[in-house]
Amino acid sequence: MTSAKSADSQNRDIDQMLKDKMPALGIDLGGTKIGCAPVADFKVIGEPSKVPTPKGAENIINTLVGLIEEARKKHILRGVGIATAGIVDTETGEVIGSTGNLPGWAGTHIKKEIETRTGLPVHVDNDANAAAYGEVKALGLSDKTCVVAVTLGTGIGGGIIMKGQLFRGAHYAAGEIGHMRSNLNNHRLCTCGLFDCWESYGSGRGFRATAKELLTNVTVDQTPLAALLPDPPVDKVCAAAQEGDIIAKRIVDAWHEHVCAGIVTLAHTLDPDCFIISGGMAKFVDYDFLKELVIDKCLPRVGERLDIHRSSLGDDAGIIGAAQIALDNLVAG
Amino acid sequence: MTSAKSADSQNRDIDQMLKDKMPALGIDLGGTKIGCAPVADFKVIGEPSKVPTPKGAENIINTLVGLIEEARKKHILRGVGIATAGIVDTETGEVIGSTGNLPGWAGTHIKKEIETRTGLPVHVDNDANAAAYGEVKALGLSDKTCVVAVTLGTGIGGGIIMKGQLFRGAHYAAGEIGHMRSNLNNHRLCTCGLFDCWESYGSGRGFRATAKELLTNVTVDQTPLAALLPDPPVDKVCAAAQEGDIIAKRIVDAWHEHVCAGIVTLAHTLDPDCFIISGGMAKFVDYDFLKELVIDKCLPRVGERLDIHRSSLGDDAGIIGAAQIALDNLVAG
Repeated sequence: MTSAKSADSQNRDIDQMLKDKMPALGIDLGGTKIGCAPVADFKVIGEPSKVPTPKGAENIINTLVGLIEEARKKHILRGVGIATAGIVDTETGEVIGSTGNLPGWAGTHIKKEIETRTGLPVHVDNDANAAAYGEVKALGLSDKTCVVAVTLGTGIGGGIIMKGQLFRGAHYAAGEIGHMRSNLNNHRLCTCGLFDCWESYGSGRGFRATAKELLTNVTVDQTPLAALLPDPPVDKVCAAAQEGDIIAKRIVDAWHEHVCAGIVTLAHTLDPDCFIISGGMAKFVDYDFLKELVIDKCLPRVGERLDIHRSSLGDDAGIIGAAQIALDNLVAG
Repeated sequence: MTSAKSADSQNRDIDQMLKDKMPALGIDLGGTKIGCAPVADFKVIGEPSKVPTPKGAENIINTLVGLIEEARKKHILRGVGIATAGIVDTETGEVIGSTGNLPGWAGTHIKKEIETRTGLPVHVDNDANAAAYGEVKALGLSDKTCVVAVTLGTGIGGGIIMKGQLFRGAHYAAGEIGHMRSNLNNHRLCTCGLFDCWESYGSGRGFRATAKELLTNVTVDQTPLAALLPDPPVDKVCAAAQEGDIIAKRIVDAWHEHVCAGIVTLAHTLDPDCFIISGGMAKFVDYDFLKELVIDKCLPRVGERLDIHRSSLGDDAGIIGAAQIALDNLVAG
């Protein structure tokens, strides 16, 4: 085939091949730190750099521009993908819904500011959506009818991917699954100000709240965990459960029930092909036990057919996902 | 334009126009009765006929065939749309998930059986999905990103419509929103065998269970409603609330909170443009109050922008929706 091509056409092919190998910079902007790395083919190039998140929108923008300029010294970038907490209008690249972790960030026109200052094409997305996109593409699940990615961290985030595309809802707020209402008795106040959000039970914060509740009337004679009050760390409780501490096991089981509750709700609503669990709490999930619980708590023919995968991208999901959306959408040409 | 057309072409146009006016037969198959009417342009032609649902799959099929043959005496039908309880494989027209209300119905190849016996094209769908489709088309909401139709009846059903198309999930079970888990304490056993499904609180059955709970320690001196135990009827409780009975009002408010809980969960998951509320309980909803509650219990920018519509098709939604899906999909040519 190439023999029939002109020299011009061959040069264009080579240009395109080189361009295809060029990375986008992925940036994961969290409440405490900013992670950043060039990404190509769903892989970060080198070790992601991490800097603390400064206070105030202007300082954050300056830090992001600094990170981009730094990366450009070593890489020719095709664009920038930014994953941020909050509800993001992905057309304009503006944060339209505030997040408690980034005060003053809502209303910032991230895309416009950074494109103006760097000249690079920028895509901005919600962090859980970006991570979901990365996970689905990396696991080769783009042809699935529906995949729900659940980020179990300090809170709970989510992303819904249908046939390889993010489902963003009517106002960019789809996938805010941490705030599904999972209890009716105003038992736990969520950090968002609502009662009984799923994340006030199923997240890391929820785990600790459950541990605190269950340990309240327990003495150190009964379990050494009681000494860890008022804020028992998740890893210590999980380790104790592994070692046979029956009270620790009750806490871990209760947390699995709480994680299960949200998955059951999502399964009956969306009937996805599968779930992907990521985030800092993913390593504490007993996947066989969770799957058993889900089957038990779902209607027949709903639970059995659900796969529950563990994240393949780990902590880099936000960085990789954000960069990959940028590569797939902004700079496809 | 027509002047340039041949006589043949004009005849074809007239054929098509006549065909466009030909109705499909819509059938709504419930646990106690079967409703049936010819439908064209989102309207039933004449008064729907109603017959009791017989026992057993073979008897049901015979009854459906009888209804179709009866309708054919008066109408030239383009096809048949059947809305049934249960999870339906809409490609094969088979009921794949059983429903307690129609024992022995799961496994029936409805489409194949009825097409063979009548020679008409048949589309079979889940009843809540069919109703949702009818409502969305009738309200002119086909261009919306996402509409969630909620059927508040004895139980709760749902249908999710994205850009005018039903979202069926990976295994035809999407929209089973009555079985979202809405409480964590195994407080109410749902008729499906699971605990704390949304429908065990937000449906008509849920309303009566709440009324029963709240009235347990109340005497007839405090409210005449206490005399209605053990199964206080919804209409009587709602009428008493309207007339100022404070205890009745608490029951009605609690039910609104329960309905709200599921809407909040769906709003944070799907971020729809709007909800449509239908079913026998829709007339008891105070829509302004429900909207207030939803705004209060949703994240900022999620609740405010949601519209909550009341059904425009009423009791005929299943019949109209089923026929309309058949018209739009089966016999579009």
